Amino acid sequence: MAVYTDVSDEVLETFLQGYDLGEVLAFKGIAEGVENSNFYLHTSKGMFILTLYEKRVREDDLPFFMGLIAHLADKGLPCPRPVADRANRIINPLAGRKAALVTFLEGISHRRPSPLHCGELGRALARLHEAGSNFDQRRPNALGKDSWSGLAQSCLVRADTLSPGFADRIRSAMERLEKNWPQDLPQGIIHGDLFPDNVFFRGNALSGLIDFYFACTDSLSYDLAICLNAWCFEADGSYNLTKGQALLQGYASLRPLSVAEQRALARLCEGAALRFLLTRLIDWLNVPEGAQVRPKDPLEYDRKLAFHSRMYEARDYGYD
Amino acid sequence: MAVYTDVSDEVLETFLQGYDLGEVLAFKGIAEGVENSNFYLHTSKGMFILTLYEKRVREDDLPFFMGLIAHLADKGLPCPRPVADRANRIINPLAGRKAALVTFLEGISHRRPSPLHCGELGRALARLHEAGSNFDQRRPNALGKDSWSGLAQSCLVRADTLSPGFADRIRSAMERLEKNWPQDLPQGIIHGDLFPDNVFFRGNALSGLIDFYFACTDSLSYDLAICLNAWCFEADGSYNLTKGQALLQGYASLRPLSVAEQRALARLCEGAALRFLLTRLIDWLNVPEGAQVRPKDPLEYDRKLAFHSRMYEARDYGYD
Repeated sequence: MAVYTDVSDEVLETFLQGYDLGEVLAFKGIAEGVENSNFYLHTSKGMFILTLYEKRVREDDLPFFMGLIAHLADKGLPCPRPVADRANRIINPLAGRKAALVTFLEGISHRRPSPLHCGELGRALARLHEAGSNFDQRRPNALGKDSWSGLAQSCLVRADTLSPGFADRIRSAMERLEKNWPQDLPQGIIHGDLFPDNVFFRGNALSGLIDFYFACTDSLSYDLAICLNAWCFEADGSYNLTKGQALLQGYASLRPLSVAEQRALARLCEGAALRFLLTRLIDWLNVPEGAQVRPKDPLEYDRKLAFHSRMYEARDYGYD
Repeated sequence: MAVYTDVSDEVLETFLQGYDLGEVLAFKGIAEGVENSNFYLHTSKGMFILTLYEKRVREDDLPFFMGLIAHLADKGLPCPRPVADRANRIINPLAGRKAALVTFLEGISHRRPSPLHCGELGRALARLHEAGSNFDQRRPNALGKDSWSGLAQSCLVRADTLSPGFADRIRSAMERLEKNWPQDLPQGIIHGDLFPDNVFFRGNALSGLIDFYFACTDSLSYDLAICLNAWCFEADGSYNLTKGQALLQGYASLRPLSVAEQRALARLCEGAALRFLLTRLIDWLNVPEGAQVRPKDPLEYDRKLAFHSRMYEARDYGYD
């Protein structure tokens, strides 16, 4: 949770003069988003989120992210829609940062999604993959498989301070995946970070997909593997097969997996677990002394990694 | 800015079952309020602020604060109105804290208020004092004059690390005020912390007064002195007489100062400056290493203290 950059009323008013948004009715920093500063903005024309991009988001990537959500919103996906200024610009300077306004989405996220929510998520993910197929920009996955050895370099030496043997387990997962990583699967736009806190519901109906700042071009079924990791495990580390079935059936009802994708799913899940394990471990080892933000537990993904290493294919996860 | 206590969707839903607020449309932690955890809650019945009271607010004081804003709202003051649950309770447990829901107020606060804003503030303060006169609860001022020597105890020894001679200046202000502190002025309910960030405007019209957690029973004109300190100085430390005139005239248009209050105003301003100097100094000296919250500068009030020590009465501040 974070507001890293302060925006005074004067700075806001000057910024909004470039837009046609009417009178400001409320403006509050919101305690959400680890990467950027986010503000809730309510004007006489509607409700919006104002984001200031902090250093972890590359400025050069912003046109991709904004172009993508505009494209997906045009295709009917419930994602935020960029709001252009009077000169039709989406990205503008504000308080020494680049900033963008998007529409506010209603709904709440569920920390412990039900099987119904997982089914909705599966369908939305397939729609996202379909809608992305004719988006004309590409972005390599900066946290894809080729990045993992570099990430591991910076944290393996201290990994055992969290759990004995942790470094060895990471090394052997990397070796296994180096040999067995699935090639030539269907590629396209993936969200890359579709955790429950990035998905809003009204009742059981999915009402919003947010936070596209890890979106990139990669194997579509790898995105599904990320979601299986993020949505279908219980707090005690167990895999909930009913949720897995719901997610996979929801997805396959719109985009059935190819045979190659079905065969690859366990390795993709293992890779996705390793990717989140590594970035969480780096964050864990680099928390500033006294910081108020508690990093997410890397060992949660150590347990998921062990689970996936014993699995073979999509059927094991509940795919019909 | 702060959300100290986490509220999951499940915990929120259980809590809201006690209320008649319809469907939850949005729920966001907001980066505001140093003392408590605050959340923006939008339901099909309206917009609300949910506050979880952290350790700096005494539980025993909550009925006073809630009763006061309900009373003031009934009298037409634009303050948040407490929202009762189905059993007509205002204060309820949530996530291990006491919590209360109040209505959301529109408007934005101005970091650098104009003379027009100061005039509005003066009128609102007088209305608050009038409306408070028939409120039937009392609360002593925990940060009133009798508390200052105790506060000073805990910070004087390190004060000179901020500025040479700072401790001596604080000591001599305390001695002066000990001799000259005005007695027997009209008492009543004061807000006690009516800084610009606690006042909302729509255009030039005042639309909201918030954050009553320092409200108490004390001299009414001391509240005016707090506002003169908080609203009428420029960033460079100079006193803006035009703003002072506007604030005092706005106030006096509804509640003229007695002769005793006019004579006492400079000493009240000096006392108010000392009170904020002391609490800011304590916060400054006790910031946890690496904390993301930057404490407010105590030396701002060192300069204000020096200014007030050379003043005599209300006319010097622009009172007609």
